[in-house]
Amino acid sequence: MSSISSASIGIVETKTVNLGSLSLENDEAIQSIELAYETYGELNSNKDNAILVCHALSGDAHAAGFHLGDKKPGWWDYYIGPGKALDTDKYFIISSNVIGGCMGSSGPLSINPITNKPYKSSFPFVSIKDMVKAQALLVDSFEIHQLFAVCGGSMGGMQALQWAVDYPSRVRNCIVMASTSEHSAQQIAFNEVGRQAIIADPNWNNGEYNQDAKPRKGLSIARMVGHVTYLSDAVMREKFGRQPPRGNIKNTDFAVGSYLIYQGESFVDRFDANSYIYVTKALDHFSLGLGEDLSRALSKVQSRFLILAYSSDWLYPPYQSREIVKALEVNAIPVAYCELKTEEGHDSFLLPSDEQTKILRGFLNFSGQDEWQ
Amino acid sequence: MSSISSASIGIVETKTVNLGSLSLENDEAIQSIELAYETYGELNSNKDNAILVCHALSGDAHAAGFHLGDKKPGWWDYYIGPGKALDTDKYFIISSNVIGGCMGSSGPLSINPITNKPYKSSFPFVSIKDMVKAQALLVDSFEIHQLFAVCGGSMGGMQALQWAVDYPSRVRNCIVMASTSEHSAQQIAFNEVGRQAIIADPNWNNGEYNQDAKPRKGLSIARMVGHVTYLSDAVMREKFGRQPPRGNIKNTDFAVGSYLIYQGESFVDRFDANSYIYVTKALDHFSLGLGEDLSRALSKVQSRFLILAYSSDWLYPPYQSREIVKALEVNAIPVAYCELKTEEGHDSFLLPSDEQTKILRGFLNFSGQDEWQ
Repeated sequence: MSSISSASIGIVETKTVNLGSLSLENDEAIQSIELAYETYGELNSNKDNAILVCHALSGDAHAAGFHLGDKKPGWWDYYIGPGKALDTDKYFIISSNVIGGCMGSSGPLSINPITNKPYKSSFPFVSIKDMVKAQALLVDSFEIHQLFAVCGGSMGGMQALQWAVDYPSRVRNCIVMASTSEHSAQQIAFNEVGRQAIIADPNWNNGEYNQDAKPRKGLSIARMVGHVTYLSDAVMREKFGRQPPRGNIKNTDFAVGSYLIYQGESFVDRFDANSYIYVTKALDHFSLGLGEDLSRALSKVQSRFLILAYSSDWLYPPYQSREIVKALEVNAIPVAYCELKTEEGHDSFLLPSDEQTKILRGFLNFSGQDEWQ
Repeated sequence: MSSISSASIGIVETKTVNLGSLSLENDEAIQSIELAYETYGELNSNKDNAILVCHALSGDAHAAGFHLGDKKPGWWDYYIGPGKALDTDKYFIISSNVIGGCMGSSGPLSINPITNKPYKSSFPFVSIKDMVKAQALLVDSFEIHQLFAVCGGSMGGMQALQWAVDYPSRVRNCIVMASTSEHSAQQIAFNEVGRQAIIADPNWNNGEYNQDAKPRKGLSIARMVGHVTYLSDAVMREKFGRQPPRGNIKNTDFAVGSYLIYQGESFVDRFDANSYIYVTKALDHFSLGLGEDLSRALSKVQSRFLILAYSSDWLYPPYQSREIVKALEVNAIPVAYCELKTEEGHDSFLLPSDEQTKILRGFLNFSGQDEWQ
């Protein structure tokens, strides 16, 4: 936890913009793409102070501030606001949702304008590249040519990397946290187990389920698997140890069991099973390569990079971040790499940390002083 | 792989012995316990050359040699046989199954003599201590007072530890591989996800399913979760990388997916879902404690110990083995600790390795020379 006191950006709301049609990496197209987003702070007259924030698998556009009536702020409120790491007194923050998900943007739950029915499993496959392409249209809508920074953790980090690769002149600074240049077999494996659990649910119906008979149990198991991978052995030991179950959760002998069951069940209320499959597939298919392939993929980027990894993150281990650093170094791209010593596992990038605040602020300030390029 | 050539013990068969009634740790009792086992080599006239081998979660009594007509030998054939680490020219090897499972010993699939129907979920909870108590009766049946060694990996290592604690004078040497003195929250968590997947299967029926309508999908998901934890990131990268699926497996885009689905489906043919729940609960409830608690638990042991851990085993990480070593050292119990550098993850202890062969042989030879005690 932190001693850096800072104010909230206050009441915010999620907006949705229609960005017209989008042609996809696989040559399909989606008519009438909608993208959910939030903004914090003010765009300056030069339109050169915008930071795009990209979220992880189960995240959404609500990164900071409070929705009217809510007691909990957005998922990265600790880092976004007046005087915070992403200082809304200086920067115009755009927090963008992704297509394929279920948090307000076009995805399997959206109405297909051709059939007037929800797409469900007929929604086309979308890649990280497609998600980023939709975000580029969002950035266009603000008439912003170059983003001051793109920033994200986990899947958000993949989006940030893809931005730097696909739109080299539009990304001045690129912040990649707890992420990778491609999903490894182990990362694919955990997502695969989750997808198989959804498919095994008798309500799955090849993705053509109705909202009153959703594959709740399958999605809940998928979330449980995921949740174990987001934490660390050490933090689970500290939080739960071998204690008996808490609350009214049945069918488990241990606190860690009641926690996971609760997490699984709550997730089902806010996430769609088709979207879980679409977005995890986007993750698994993400690949900028490794070694020389990765060096080639990053050879045209024009951003300055900050790569953050976390010692206790065994799902996206630091060696994957170092692969990115190496490939940038090969190309003589300016890159700072910090491996933070944490106990919280993959979730570390989401959690309050003075150290992370100072590193993010330092990286953004340095660039702000135009000492580079 | 190894250059140490060695012969097979040849054709073997699994036997079953009825050991009468067994009172359990939780004060319940099972009438008429059956235990499946195999033996290799000859018991000497002093009856002091017996080594008990204990298996892991999904293992069975068939550790070495070939069942008539089989092309594949038992699960630890590389280490058991004439001239091998556990040398059947010198030792009498007893490989014992566990109660609660489904590999020939009393468990949920057994007939309850009172009702004349399978126990299913009415089978009482059995602990690692109970499994070991049944094995002690098996050892009694050979009129063996003291085992030359007890040896096991993973759950087998827990049995070996429990043997040394519960029957101090009966265990001369104790070999604990890839194991722990208690299941951590993370280890419980992975088992919990598996159990919840089984419970979520519509065929589960509170464990009262029939064999023609088993919770196949749930058990298959449970096995998939387990399987990911038995391997390492590195070995999965090497074996599967990001390659497309192999064989006729559908519903996956990746080789690692087709592998896991295949592993899950084959497992269901040979394992019972109730047993999976009983045995994983035995694992999760296993606790000799940590730190001072563990030192106290081990204060009366009389064995000499070999503790083996594996650098790539993230499911039972080496620090858990070092906890056992520390607690033994505190009690001035002779203990050798080896951390083997491997790439294969938790499964390492099962795989052929010259290094492991030499260490096991060295440990057993030393003791055989009576240089200690």
